[in-house]
Amino acid sequence: MASPLTPRATDFPRWYQDVITQAGLADNGPVRGTMVIRPWGYAIWERMQAELDARIKAAGAENAYFPLFIPESYLRREAEHVEGFSPELAVVTHGGGRRLEEPVVVRPTSETVINSFFAKWVQSYRDLPLLINQWANVVRWELRPRLFLRTSEFLWQEGHTAHATEAEARVYALRILRDVYEATMRDVLSVPVLVGHKTARERFAGAIRTWTCEAMMGDGKALQMGTSHELGQNFARAFGIQFSSESGTQEYPWQTSWGVSTRLVGALIMAHGDDAGLRLPPQLAPLQVVVLVVRDDEGVRRAAEEIAAELRRTGRRVRVDDAVDVSFGRRSVDWELKGVPVRVEVGPRELAAGQVTVVRRDRQEKRPVPVGAAAAEVRKDLLKVAVSLREEAAARQAARTVAVSTREEAAAAAADGFAVLPWDAVGVGGELELAAAGVSVRCLQRPDGTLAESDDEPGLVAVVAKAY
Amino acid sequence: MASPLTPRATDFPRWYQDVITQAGLADNGPVRGTMVIRPWGYAIWERMQAELDARIKAAGAENAYFPLFIPESYLRREAEHVEGFSPELAVVTHGGGRRLEEPVVVRPTSETVINSFFAKWVQSYRDLPLLINQWANVVRWELRPRLFLRTSEFLWQEGHTAHATEAEARVYALRILRDVYEATMRDVLSVPVLVGHKTARERFAGAIRTWTCEAMMGDGKALQMGTSHELGQNFARAFGIQFSSESGTQEYPWQTSWGVSTRLVGALIMAHGDDAGLRLPPQLAPLQVVVLVVRDDEGVRRAAEEIAAELRRTGRRVRVDDAVDVSFGRRSVDWELKGVPVRVEVGPRELAAGQVTVVRRDRQEKRPVPVGAAAAEVRKDLLKVAVSLREEAAARQAARTVAVSTREEAAAAAADGFAVLPWDAVGVGGELELAAAGVSVRCLQRPDGTLAESDDEPGLVAVVAKAY
Repeated sequence: MASPLTPRATDFPRWYQDVITQAGLADNGPVRGTMVIRPWGYAIWERMQAELDARIKAAGAENAYFPLFIPESYLRREAEHVEGFSPELAVVTHGGGRRLEEPVVVRPTSETVINSFFAKWVQSYRDLPLLINQWANVVRWELRPRLFLRTSEFLWQEGHTAHATEAEARVYALRILRDVYEATMRDVLSVPVLVGHKTARERFAGAIRTWTCEAMMGDGKALQMGTSHELGQNFARAFGIQFSSESGTQEYPWQTSWGVSTRLVGALIMAHGDDAGLRLPPQLAPLQVVVLVVRDDEGVRRAAEEIAAELRRTGRRVRVDDAVDVSFGRRSVDWELKGVPVRVEVGPRELAAGQVTVVRRDRQEKRPVPVGAAAAEVRKDLLKVAVSLREEAAARQAARTVAVSTREEAAAAAADGFAVLPWDAVGVGGELELAAAGVSVRCLQRPDGTLAESDDEPGLVAVVAKAY
Repeated sequence: MASPLTPRATDFPRWYQDVITQAGLADNGPVRGTMVIRPWGYAIWERMQAELDARIKAAGAENAYFPLFIPESYLRREAEHVEGFSPELAVVTHGGGRRLEEPVVVRPTSETVINSFFAKWVQSYRDLPLLINQWANVVRWELRPRLFLRTSEFLWQEGHTAHATEAEARVYALRILRDVYEATMRDVLSVPVLVGHKTARERFAGAIRTWTCEAMMGDGKALQMGTSHELGQNFARAFGIQFSSESGTQEYPWQTSWGVSTRLVGALIMAHGDDAGLRLPPQLAPLQVVVLVVRDDEGVRRAAEEIAAELRRTGRRVRVDDAVDVSFGRRSVDWELKGVPVRVEVGPRELAAGQVTVVRRDRQEKRPVPVGAAAAEVRKDLLKVAVSLREEAAARQAARTVAVSTREEAAAAAADGFAVLPWDAVGVGGELELAAAGVSVRCLQRPDGTLAESDDEPGLVAVVAKAY
């Protein structure tokens, strides 16, 4: 049975939408731009969350929860910040059956409300560093919504920290960027990322430096996967956060904020999906193995249950699909769509010969395996899938990245992937020209891919691409 | 050093507020009725969440996420439901810089939006039962907010299910009530609860039956801890959810919904707290043990670290408090306030005699223990605390529950605890009279405390109390 998806080469955005629908990941909500995350999509997000949360806690941050509603006046305190968000705000004007005296904004991010509490909690150098993380929904009204990538409401974590010195704030922003974000993307999502910093034009509103992880999707476009901001003392000044230093002077702390969102589910789809659907790394797959009963048969059912039981005993997430009133072809296609990493097919004829078929989803290879060795073979396959998906994504990125020397060449090359050129050849004026060609500087790096100390460092390169 | 709290006997509500502030559990948000859950409070909630989530999944429900914003028109579809919620709604009238064509409501609960999707997802008896759970924030404008107990925004889980028959729906509603809610309250929160069903007057708007867990707080008042509703076919009819049965007829499914919220943190405070602060069951405690360095001393620090290391090796959550620039008394009081179940005090004089002091928070008993046996003693204590807290709460409930025979007696007895009287002696008219006296029927049960099949069952008793 053929896949019901639009081929990627025909229309990548339509393929993306098809995968989301057919794999049961999400639906559009009734209010424009909102999203219903269905169980298969949510189970993937839950596992991402757990992996991120463990790394965030290992970096010393504690979870807390701040209100959804923020007084409008709070957003105005930091001028650049309000400019960045005002066209995207949702505003509550009525509550409890009455018009509110001051309208409240549904949080687009929580810098303002969290910093108003930091002003209470931070008094002395002993209160620093203050490292807070929040898992929450946020709202930014979207004119061109796309499921998981740009929705009016999305789920994310936002970290907010305060430090005694600028150097400490930078170290922490980079620790989150690399040990939490890059590590999760590479080791859990199997998505290799470029790390670098944003140009002034692309920076977060209110930040002095935005660090970013950028990945190449299946169509060669870039997706911003997560950002970590140094906020300098901007919010501290706006919200009056001060601490008495060890020497007794009053100082403004240096701050960071950082976030990743349900957009990562979109990244996972576009980085690994193929024309048959999703391909999930085993760490994130709600089910790692499906054992398919090919046709109704007592012996077949028993063999399928035994293989599943052995895999469960060793901690794998397994389902036996014995819905034999649905055709075997239909069921195979559905599990491929959903991206389950390994499939075991158990049929009566093969079983009579002592064999079953094992199929690795990432390569679509079928191979016969002795029934007694099936569980062990599946476990070996599961170890290979994550590495193999990451290598494939890395190979694509390498193949579709070209070094160029002019803005014109960069704009042309970005039609099919990433272009790398000297930052000097772009410059601040050049970014406008690139924008007119529909591409942008995704990040600045040193030529060897490492992080720069400042924009002024000589010899930096710009990574240019079309972006989601 | 004395506790900085108002004694419970002097003013229980003020004591409650003091504990929340002094233990660093929560703060008021800037918009009236909203709440900031601080790290200590949030860590307790996270552990409750994890325990509930595991039991919800064991009951077969899958997590999903539905939008925060609901079109106003959705709420009007089920008449009783809109009546129940309309005075509490927060309404968004502006989004993306423009007035919205149709105002949207910030979800007070998600029955309406979830059922609009159930109408798409449920087609055949094969799609049933459909068992969905969501962890989310909801908003109900509160005129008399109180942290954790009644806040305009709160965090909760809401389950929504659809079943082929009324009997199956009831079995599932009760499975959630007992195996998820009652079990978590009893075994994790150490809070014994009464289970029963609500009178028609106290029932959820749109439900045909509301099952409830009710607990007695430290002041003898009742707190509704969680509810599980049978919705009949009310929402199915309103939202056009139909399935083709095995025999080919079109049928409306029978539904349930159920939820518990951050109110459980309030319950934990009020069920177990004493005049020195919180008392946490070890399963929920962010830290289970604090090892206090009494005075700065090389040997003392080393002994404290060794005890902590041994406890960590066996999986306990431990912190060494060596902030010796703060007085020992102040630090002891702070850890008592925060409710850490067991404290180990390591001081130079005692240590020279080969001993340390172990203190169980629930009983405030101090006892000397040989330093080499400290970790083992602490582990034994941790096993006892949860049981001891539960027994204490159960004893209070037993001591402050009286059997009465008239409404007047019930209203009088409810000043100090629970009154139990024949439901026949209350009747529908009698509820109004009780309400005038500031008390209410918390639930109906059989005299032996088991669940009734219907309101009309002869011999039911009503549990009457003042309620939060």
